[in-house]
Amino acid sequence: MHFADRLHHATRRTGSPVCVGLDPVLESLPADLRAQHHDPLEAIAEFCRGVLHATAPHAPAVKFQSACFERYGGRGVLLLEHLITEAASQGFVVVLDAKRGDIGISASHYAASAKRTGAHAVTVSGYLGPSGVTPFLDAGLAAFVLVRTSNPDSDAVQAHTLADGRTVAEMMADHVAALGATRLGACGLSDVGAVVGATKSSEGRALRARMPTQVFLVPGYGAQGGTAEDIRALLTARRDGVLVTASRSIIYAPGDGPWKDRVAAAARQLNHDIAGIVG
Amino acid sequence: MHFADRLHHATRRTGSPVCVGLDPVLESLPADLRAQHHDPLEAIAEFCRGVLHATAPHAPAVKFQSACFERYGGRGVLLLEHLITEAASQGFVVVLDAKRGDIGISASHYAASAKRTGAHAVTVSGYLGPSGVTPFLDAGLAAFVLVRTSNPDSDAVQAHTLADGRTVAEMMADHVAALGATRLGACGLSDVGAVVGATKSSEGRALRARMPTQVFLVPGYGAQGGTAEDIRALLTARRDGVLVTASRSIIYAPGDGPWKDRVAAAARQLNHDIAGIVG
Repeated sequence: MHFADRLHHATRRTGSPVCVGLDPVLESLPADLRAQHHDPLEAIAEFCRGVLHATAPHAPAVKFQSACFERYGGRGVLLLEHLITEAASQGFVVVLDAKRGDIGISASHYAASAKRTGAHAVTVSGYLGPSGVTPFLDAGLAAFVLVRTSNPDSDAVQAHTLADGRTVAEMMADHVAALGATRLGACGLSDVGAVVGATKSSEGRALRARMPTQVFLVPGYGAQGGTAEDIRALLTARRDGVLVTASRSIIYAPGDGPWKDRVAAAARQLNHDIAGIVG
Repeated sequence: MHFADRLHHATRRTGSPVCVGLDPVLESLPADLRAQHHDPLEAIAEFCRGVLHATAPHAPAVKFQSACFERYGGRGVLLLEHLITEAASQGFVVVLDAKRGDIGISASHYAASAKRTGAHAVTVSGYLGPSGVTPFLDAGLAAFVLVRTSNPDSDAVQAHTLADGRTVAEMMADHVAALGATRLGACGLSDVGAVVGATKSSEGRALRARMPTQVFLVPGYGAQGGTAEDIRALLTARRDGVLVTASRSIIYAPGDGPWKDRVAAAARQLNHDIAGIVG
């Protein structure tokens, strides 16, 4: 099944295109959970399983931040593989946020590595050119290419204007649209998507015009300053094509009561908020 | 010790700034070695140890392609860590070719992951902005930022001209120079380097002018078409500042005789060739 269709169906089930960002950092985990485990990876494993269980009814997708597992070396990578398998079996569409970017055989190896985890999609850097992206697609994965990220200093690279009038981000967007043009699901969206932050709505509209069939993986809503209007700027003409991702605001949701209840409530709230914007 | 000084001393010992690229692919390993091992990772481990032993007298540095190990999941990553430790203990300066590119806490995690392997330097993508590079430096690693790569379709991104007259690669070069300006070793070179392919000497000269204190990690010599003149275009005024990397032409060196002897001979030849260009 095309990734875009898998995501489309999962989103219809849960009601709203939201993605839980699993970026577990030991120091930020609930204190009682940390106290129960000597081994950091056991604490992280229990935490991730709790988040998956709590958010499954509210989020069609989950995004695993590879770095948070890789920092524990081989054991961390093994845990990541287990958790991706579990998330996929619970019905989540799984994005591996690894931001790999290489070429040729090395890119094929990264694709094989992501594929063996059971992830459905990966984030990819396009700086080396389109040949850095195609090996992931050839391996049967969807790809979200980094186009316009939400970090404050992304302007230093992505906002430069080219001699032909496009920005660097728009040039990358055109590559993404070209790569994705022949990889459309029945839902009309492509398996080649883009990472586009929610923090600049005028830019967002321009990027959507260049990438009419792309799914945008959208960080930056809420905590990083992105507003409902910023999200609306990213929608397709049919008011779809976004996957709004939130990490800390969900997995470390503040408030009273048990942490899993707070996580579930935050995911439910985001689902509700985004449904109001998209629907 | 500054990375640049470590590399400087190691290069004086071996006589020539060459780097062995360890990109082991099972299908390309010597047939007898493959026949001895059921487990692909055991074959790769023996192969890598043989290459390290054969090339240590001739190469100051080795570059591990992370993808070739990651494709075997957690066990592959564990092997990579072991091999990096072994290479460092043999006196190699070790570059981890992982091309990571993320920001904030995720970049810090990638840096921690690289640091725990014992690598001295990493390759990094700068598309997210300078904040994607600094966490590696803060962790005590040197960084080679992707500026101008040697793959055929890199022009599609890196060769575009900006409105201000610079190319995208030159804009990235200016970020690298700025990041590296305060991180100079006693040898006068910086711990912030750049990946600059050997295949375009006119571009190479322009990039060197923008990055006077950077070490260039240089793929593309020989097999990919880079010539002695292309390497000369990349040298500093003092005729240093390059680390010429070769992978397949060394680790799969053709010819007669035992494979380890062929590998040693190819490394010795590259050492000789580059000494003639640089010295």
